Formats: sequence, C-alpha cells, structure tokens
Amino acid sequence: MKAKGTLSERLNAVFHPRSIAVVGASATPNTFGYLFMDYLIKAGYTGTLYPVNPNSDQILGFKAYPSLKDIPGDVDYVISCIGARHVPEMIRQCPARNVKGVHLFTARMSETGDKRGHELEKEISSEAGRLGISLIGPNCMGIYYPKGGISYAYDLPKRSGKVGGIFQSGGISVNFIRYAGIRGVTFSKVVSYGNAAGLNESDLLEYLAGDDETGLIAIYIEGVRDGRRFFKTLKKAAAVKPVIVLKGGRTRAGTRSTFSHTASIAGSFNAWEVMFRQCNAVQAADMDEFVDLTVAFNFLPEINGKRVGVIGGSGGKVVLAADECEQAGLDVVALPEDVKELIRNKAPEFINWLGNPVDFSILTGAKITPMELMQGMAGSSGFDFLVCNVTEENPFDDFMWAQLITFEVNEYLNISSAGIKPLVVTIANPGLGMSNTGEWRWKTLLEKREMLASRGIAVFSSVRSAATALSKLVNYYLNRKRMRHGGAE
Amino acid sequence: MKAKGTLSERLNAVFHPRSIAVVGASATPNTFGYLFMDYLIKAGYTGTLYPVNPNSDQILGFKAYPSLKDIPGDVDYVISCIGARHVPEMIRQCPARNVKGVHLFTARMSETGDKRGHELEKEISSEAGRLGISLIGPNCMGIYYPKGGISYAYDLPKRSGKVGGIFQSGGISVNFIRYAGIRGVTFSKVVSYGNAAGLNESDLLEYLAGDDETGLIAIYIEGVRDGRRFFKTLKKAAAVKPVIVLKGGRTRAGTRSTFSHTASIAGSFNAWEVMFRQCNAVQAADMDEFVDLTVAFNFLPEINGKRVGVIGGSGGKVVLAADECEQAGLDVVALPEDVKELIRNKAPEFINWLGNPVDFSILTGAKITPMELMQGMAGSSGFDFLVCNVTEENPFDDFMWAQLITFEVNEYLNISSAGIKPLVVTIANPGLGMSNTGEWRWKTLLEKREMLASRGIAVFSSVRSAATALSKLVNYYLNRKRMRHGGAE
Repeated sequence: MKAKGTLSERLNAVFHPRSIAVVGASATPNTFGYLFMDYLIKAGYTGTLYPVNPNSDQILGFKAYPSLKDIPGDVDYVISCIGARHVPEMIRQCPARNVKGVHLFTARMSETGDKRGHELEKEISSEAGRLGISLIGPNCMGIYYPKGGISYAYDLPKRSGKVGGIFQSGGISVNFIRYAGIRGVTFSKVVSYGNAAGLNESDLLEYLAGDDETGLIAIYIEGVRDGRRFFKTLKKAAAVKPVIVLKGGRTRAGTRSTFSHTASIAGSFNAWEVMFRQCNAVQAADMDEFVDLTVAFNFLPEINGKRVGVIGGSGGKVVLAADECEQAGLDVVALPEDVKELIRNKAPEFINWLGNPVDFSILTGAKITPMELMQGMAGSSGFDFLVCNVTEENPFDDFMWAQLITFEVNEYLNISSAGIKPLVVTIANPGLGMSNTGEWRWKTLLEKREMLASRGIAVFSSVRSAATALSKLVNYYLNRKRMRHGGAE
Repeated sequence: MKAKGTLSERLNAVFHPRSIAVVGASATPNTFGYLFMDYLIKAGYTGTLYPVNPNSDQILGFKAYPSLKDIPGDVDYVISCIGARHVPEMIRQCPARNVKGVHLFTARMSETGDKRGHELEKEISSEAGRLGISLIGPNCMGIYYPKGGISYAYDLPKRSGKVGGIFQSGGISVNFIRYAGIRGVTFSKVVSYGNAAGLNESDLLEYLAGDDETGLIAIYIEGVRDGRRFFKTLKKAAAVKPVIVLKGGRTRAGTRSTFSHTASIAGSFNAWEVMFRQCNAVQAADMDEFVDLTVAFNFLPEINGKRVGVIGGSGGKVVLAADECEQAGLDVVALPEDVKELIRNKAPEFINWLGNPVDFSILTGAKITPMELMQGMAGSSGFDFLVCNVTEENPFDDFMWAQLITFEVNEYLNISSAGIKPLVVTIANPGLGMSNTGEWRWKTLLEKREMLASRGIAVFSSVRSAATALSKLVNYYLNRKRMRHGGAE
C-alpha cells in the first residue's frame, strides 16, 4: 500500500480516531448499520460520531448526514456498512474529509467466488492505496480497541490488557476474545481483517510487534498475501514477543472452506508448520488450545525448564496427571531431596509412599499437612513450576467439601501471590447446564475459577490442557534464548 | 475365587442385598463410617441397614450393633470402614450372618508399598475366598447401583440408565459419573474395585458383558491381575457391547503413580494399545475423551459410515470445523447432488459459494433458509450423520441473538427427534465463572445445552471432540461388523 507516513504512524491514526463515520448507519435495530453505531456507543467511544444515511436526520441520538462529503469537519475513520457496489464512490469522497482509515464491514466481494466481486475488491483496494487510505477488510469486523472505546460486539471486555490479536475471521475473533476474557485475559488491540485487500496480516503483525501496549500476539490466519514477507515479519515478531498462531485450512476440507470464507488460498499445511517452527511461533492445534496458550503466556512469566511438580487430586486422577504431563513433554521429576527431607522430618512413614505427583488422599491423617508439603514443593529449586489440580473428588459433605476446596485454592493463591514459584491451577469444566450452576459443588468451583482468574492465575480445565500449554510456553522461551544467542534453528 | 454359585449369581446377590451392614459406622459427620451410611440413606436404599459400632446404640436413627455377629438376622452385604488390621476378624464373622459380599473401603494395604500391608491383603483375600464371600476392594468406593438405592457419593444421578462402569479408582469414578451425568448419561451398575484382591476387572467385565441392564461399559484400569484372562474377557465383551477404556499409567511417571495408588504394575503401554485394538475396545486418550465417548455411545445409534455433514457456525469457525472433522478421520464430503439440487432450485446464485460445512452467515438474505438447507441435508442419503455447530458468534443484540439460537437449536432437536439422521450438537464450553452464568449469552447456552442433553442429544464442547468421538464410534461398529463376519483383525 502506498500511503502517507510510516506503517506505525498510519496504524496509530487508525486506532486513535478523533471522529468516526458509520456509513450506512441505520435506526433499525439489528441491522449492521445500527449495530456498529451501538457497539461504539456501548463501548464508550468519546470522539465524534457521524452516522451517514441519506434517508435519516438522526440515528441513535446523533445527527445523521446524507453522505461523507456532507459532514462538517474531518473524519479520521470510516466504518462501511453499505452494499459492495457503493463502496468505490464512498472511497472517492474520503480525501475531502481527510479520512485516514476505512473499515469495510461490507462483504460479498472476492469471497463469493464471483468474478465481479473479485474485480470490485481490486478496484477498491487500488483506489484506497492511491488515496493513501489505510483499508481494513472487506468482509471483516474491524477494530477492537478497548482503551479507545472501539468495539465490534456487545460483550467484549472494556478493560484493556496486553494481548494483541490479528484475525482473518471476525467470528473466531469475538469467540476468542470472549473465551479468553472469561479466563481473565484482556486485550491491547485486535483487528479482524477479513479479505485483506488493504492492510494484511504482515502489516498488522509488524505493527503489533512494535506496539508498546502489546505484550503478546494471537493470530488466526487462513492464507497470506506475501509468504516471504510474512515469514520475515513473523520471525522478527516472535523474537520480540510470543506469537501464538492458529491456522485455519489445515486439511483438504478446511482449505476448500477458506476460499468461500476469505478467498484465501490456504496452501500446504506442512509448509506452514515448518515456517511456524523456523520462526519460533507457537502453534495452537485448535480453538481451545489457542485460548489456553494465550492464557498461559498472558499470566505466566518466562519459564526456562520443564521440571513440573504436580499437587492435588487423589487416586487415579493423580496417575492420569502424571501421564498427561509426561505425554505433553514435561519432566515429572521425582520429589527433590529437600522435599524428601521435609517428609522424613515430619512424617517418615510416608517417605516411600508419597511421590510426584502428590496424592492428597495419602496425606489423610499424616503429620505433614498438604499445606506444608505444598510450601515445601513451592520452595524447592527442584521444580520449575507447579500444576495444582484441585481435589474436587473429595468425598465429604457440602460444608466440609467447600471448606477443603477453599483451603486448597487459597494456598495455591498464596504461593502464586508470593511469587515463590510459577503455577497453574486446573479445575474440571464439564458441560454444565443452567440448573447445575446452582448446585453446591459446581457453584463453588465456578466461584473459585473466577476468583483465581481475577487474581491473575492461569486456570485450565484439565491437566492435559495445562501441560500442553506449559510445554509449548517453555519451548518458546528456550528456543528464543537459543536463537538470540546466535544458534540457528 | 472359590465361591458359591456362578459369577453372575454371586454378583447379582451383591447388587441386590436385602440388608447391608456398615461396619465401622459412625455418628460423627464426615467420617467415612458416617458418610457410607448417609450415602445409602440419601440414595434411597430400602433394604435393612445395620450400623456396626461397639461404642454406639444408634447411628443416624438406626439401631447399632457391637459387631457383625450380634446382628439378629442375615446380612447380605457388608461395607467395611474399619482399620485394616481389624478386617480379618470381621471377615471370619461373615459366614454366621450369611454374608454374600464384602466391600472394603478400608485401605492402607498393598498400595502403601509396605510389606505388612501386602501380607494382610493376601490374608484377607484368601480368607474371603475360602468362605465363599465376594470381595470388593480393598481401597475402593464399592458399588453405585441407582436402581437399588446404593451409592458412594452425595450427588450421583438417582435415575438409572444403561452405562455400566468398572473403575480401579474411586475418585475417577465419581468424577466420571458426575461429568457424564451432567450431559444426560445415566448408569446401570458401577463398581469401584481398587486393589482387586477379590473380584477383579475380568470378573466385573464378564459380569457386565452379560448384564441385561448394561448397554455399554466404561472401564478405568491401571493394571490387571491376569492379562490372558482379561484379553479374552475384553474381546468377548466388546463383541457384544461397546467397551470404552481409559488406561492410567501410560508413561514412566504415570506407572510410578499407579503403584502407590492401587499397587498395580501398569506394564508397557504399547502392549496395552495392541491388546485394546485386537479386542476392538474403544480407547480414550484422557478423561474428557472418556466422557465424550460415553456420551456418544450412550445417545447415538449404530452408525456405519463416516460421511459427515457439518451445519452451523460462520466464517473461520466453519473452516476449523472442516479441519477438525477431517483430522479426526471423518469424511467431509462435498454437498450431495440432492442438496445441490435444492440450492439450485431455491437460490441458484449460491451454488458455487455454499459447501459442506455450511456457513450460516453466507445464507444471510438468501432465498433458501437455514432450516430448509438443514432439512435437505438431514434427508440426504449422502451423509451418515450431522455435526451441528451452534452459531453463537452471531453479532446481534441479546433478544435477536437468543431468538436465532433458539430457532437453530430447536431445528436440531426436530431433526433428531424425527429420527431422520443421527446428529450431535456442539456448544462451546469456555471456563465460565459464577458471575458469567447470569449473562444473557452464557445463560442461554447453558440452558440450551441442558435442554438438549435432557432430550437425549449428545452435546460436545467442540467440533474436535465431537469428531473424535464419532470417528471412534463408527470404527467400533465397522470393526465389530467385520469381526462378526469372520474377518480377522
């Protein structure tokens, strides 16, 4: 794209518009021209808002204008909800209003597989380029920038945080922001960029890699415009901050679907995988893992080793925890000498029975309490991090059960708050129905999960998912270290 | 075990006791002697209940007896909560009361790694064998038989169903029953059998394979007593009904843990995998998949093909759905000719754009409604089953969003109820906190999930997990067919 200013200056302007025009705004609820106005109002956008619609004087309490050129003053950013064929004329009106960025929610272009749609998209893209306008889309949701009161859904977090996002799919992006948000993750800047006729994945990645508000980056991608540039940009970005990638179109069936979605040519997934590895990008296998990895990188510090201590749970759950950690590539080391010493001093009769993972049910009646053992493990240099597996299967009645769970969870919180040792907590997440949420067991677990997330703890729904995320997190930091010290991948 | 009657007769007696003695019963809440009494009372056991405790006259409203031999009348079943060293004497008192089965919740035997514990367990086992008593345990939770009002936790479903369970771990079993129960699964008979000093996995499997109340069997296993017998029994059982197996102790770390849990020698996992394949047992990779597979086999009919039609969702979610189905080994076939014909008739302009999976967002404003297309797909012989992916990412406001979700979910229910085509529904299950459950989006999804489960529909939390379960389900039925027709595996 030929446009004024550096990429960073141009995108900063897009994220900080003093005024926004919604072209195709509407007073009819649940039309997109209504929704995009309403999203901005509800997200708390404080700049000037101009609805554009030739048939209305006022929309949602704001004075409406027949066209862009009728607006009295500059318009920094335009959100287009009009039909595809009207877009070229709208773009031509932009320079008179000093428009810096245009987001085309407008779709039905190249993704339809139709030749005319494709040509129209090309025309729009080259016109925007010629006029120096940063173009987002078409066929996308645009920008979510909570700090600036810009959103593209009703219920995305208003608090801002450090996760940046680049999404070729708007639907994936809203789901992702919601799911990660529920687990305490907040966002710096997210872009849903659709068909990428203007700004593409490489532009956005380059920008977020250099963005001070962004500490890590999550990307959902189907295809790229310029593979060589993307490779270089990704490698540079991942050298600076974690980049987590979910690739859509990994199979024959998925590849067929990418075309009708964003007109992307997904390409061979093997080639993608090699590229992700060479760049030290963190690959997510699916949506759940994409969220899990984001939670891990958002809350955990740099960890440079895989020796895991596993605490909590009883019986078979402890066996499975050991299996799942080792299968994910973690090192389920034997109890370190200092922890053994502690057991020998307090409860020597358990020295041959207790191991890592620690089975809480074994400690029933022992002279070493779970808390003492937890603290011993947290303080031991023999572990790089802990996986804390809430012992929900304890057999007691509602009152005592809740007491024990509270005791256990608080201790995890204490260890984490004191910064003694990085840890994650696992709390099972079966597919509850609404009526289950009122039952004591599930109610308590839902409350604990929320409390932990709000206190900055990474909570996972299984040891398997926690172990997978942690293993990938450690790999990322170890690779980065090696690559920084000049080692080739 | 040498005991009176056939295995089936002996186990039927265990599951249908006219009287139960809880030895070591207690009036102190949250001791196990209290809990096992209370579990039975709350589960609605209608036989005679005898608490046994030398220091009490009455426990929980029931007359207590100093010892088994003081009970006036027969005792069919004994639950033992006393210390390990008191068990042999208690066993010796059993014949006088005509005891048919003893469940040793009592633990601290071979699983401690201690020589004395091991010898005590051997003594008890041979004594029970000599006296013709069916022994369950030690170190286990015993029997869950909802139809007979026998339970070992407070909140297991009271309704009975067709899933039988054999669990070497009590904790895994209660978690499993709860998680599967939330998703609408109900159980015939479940046994937590611990150290297996008496009845072992092969006995229980043989029994459930021949049990008319049991339609499928779920097993969690760490090690077996007699590999050759287990192999034969498993093969025979899986030829009759689906057997889903989760193996604890698949790794070095997991194997170490199985010993301190149930004194099991887990053995090489490769050998286990080969055996499971040869027996056509359905292997679960982890706890989540264990529950998913049980849900699938519980609700779905026999399906003999892998051609999947995927409905619902928009944009990238549809791309990922295609990827995940194909990666799980399903056949994401192109839209069959009869469905294409329907599109050509109703909305020819979409014929090149719509595909399988169907992206609901493409249908916006189309002359073919999602309902018509769904019905067309359900009626087409080109699909063996459907995966219905609830379109939660629709961008509308609370009212319209809920309307669209209701419309979509009801249509899935209609198709399923009419028996036109087997289907599963996927509804995302992010780790909600308690406060999220009051928000309109999550509240609606929680309600829909519950409604579908209560109407007998298999609901999964992702396309990946649904596709994995379905792929394994179809494999089971295809293998069984082949093996029945004399083909060697």
